[in-house]
Amino acid sequence: MDRFSRQIEFILELDKLKRVQRRTYLTDASRWENTAEHSWHVSLAAFVLAEHADEKPDIGRVLRMLLVHDVVEIDADDTFCYDEDGVVGQTEREQAAADRLFALLPDDQAEEFRALWEEFEAGNTPEARFARTLDRLQPLLQNFASQGRSWRENRISKDQVLLRVSDSPEASGRIQNHFRFLIDAAVGKGYLNP
Amino acid sequence: MDRFSRQIEFILELDKLKRVQRRTYLTDASRWENTAEHSWHVSLAAFVLAEHADEKPDIGRVLRMLLVHDVVEIDADDTFCYDEDGVVGQTEREQAAADRLFALLPDDQAEEFRALWEEFEAGNTPEARFARTLDRLQPLLQNFASQGRSWRENRISKDQVLLRVSDSPEASGRIQNHFRFLIDAAVGKGYLNP
Repeated sequence: MDRFSRQIEFILELDKLKRVQRRTYLTDASRWENTAEHSWHVSLAAFVLAEHADEKPDIGRVLRMLLVHDVVEIDADDTFCYDEDGVVGQTEREQAAADRLFALLPDDQAEEFRALWEEFEAGNTPEARFARTLDRLQPLLQNFASQGRSWRENRISKDQVLLRVSDSPEASGRIQNHFRFLIDAAVGKGYLNP
Repeated sequence: MDRFSRQIEFILELDKLKRVQRRTYLTDASRWENTAEHSWHVSLAAFVLAEHADEKPDIGRVLRMLLVHDVVEIDADDTFCYDEDGVVGQTEREQAAADRLFALLPDDQAEEFRALWEEFEAGNTPEARFARTLDRLQPLLQNFASQGRSWRENRISKDQVLLRVSDSPEASGRIQNHFRFLIDAAVGKGYLNP
């Protein structure tokens, strides 16, 4: 296949991400969201909140990273972050998914996309740290707005959520403050176990 | 409300775009796609195909534009482009939606987001022309992959689709060629009326 045809094949394959369900409800709790919707929402949220990054990221790179960050779930499915059995083998499943999916692209783009995804996973650059912080914020906002439905159904505790949102504390002090505010408020309202 | 709180309100409001249905089926024709998924898909497709732009756009601006381009549908709903009655009043509905939605943001960001949306609508810059071309390509790819289900259900003809995809012919000769290829193939397979 020529270069353009490989790119079109990859774009068609991306459609499958719309069928991957996450364990986060929409704000009205009517249904779970899927990973494609999540990827749009977290990207646009990063654009809105870019000024609160303490390390001044290249926002274009943050957006490209967030658009790509969950594409591996097409093969590897979404892993509920609080499912201790589910996370076993997650890394291997996602690596295999990256091998197959990015190889659909022309070689130079396969390399570029994989590097973006690996940068996000490693979280070692200002862009990846800010992207990861947004990837924690967006579901937290929705879980709070949906009165903690997913947290309550899965008996999630404050400590579990605190651990989850603490992986990039240097990315944004303002957003870290908001994590603590939301988590305390969620405990106060009975959305989260103390 | 302070600046951060207004930004968070806007981000929460964005969630509603996941409940806006478009008249495009997923590639497996299992259901319609929603506007949030579409916005992610078209943004990532623009990133993949950026090299085929004939006018060299600022791709970061294209991505920001595509992430924002359909936010007004939260209030104005998606208008099926081939529905002659539905398009009556579309501009006014979308302007009113933009007035309300972007005003949730701090003033400087409200202005920035509105300008991005208006630039997309006007289609007068290389970025807007390329973004509009991608906004035509992504549903065309899905309509073809789903064996023209939406076209067949709505008795759409080749001329209607040709007119729809012809609004930015200068953005990318390569993608324009692909439009013609897909449309002819769709007629050949009976997905589109000749």
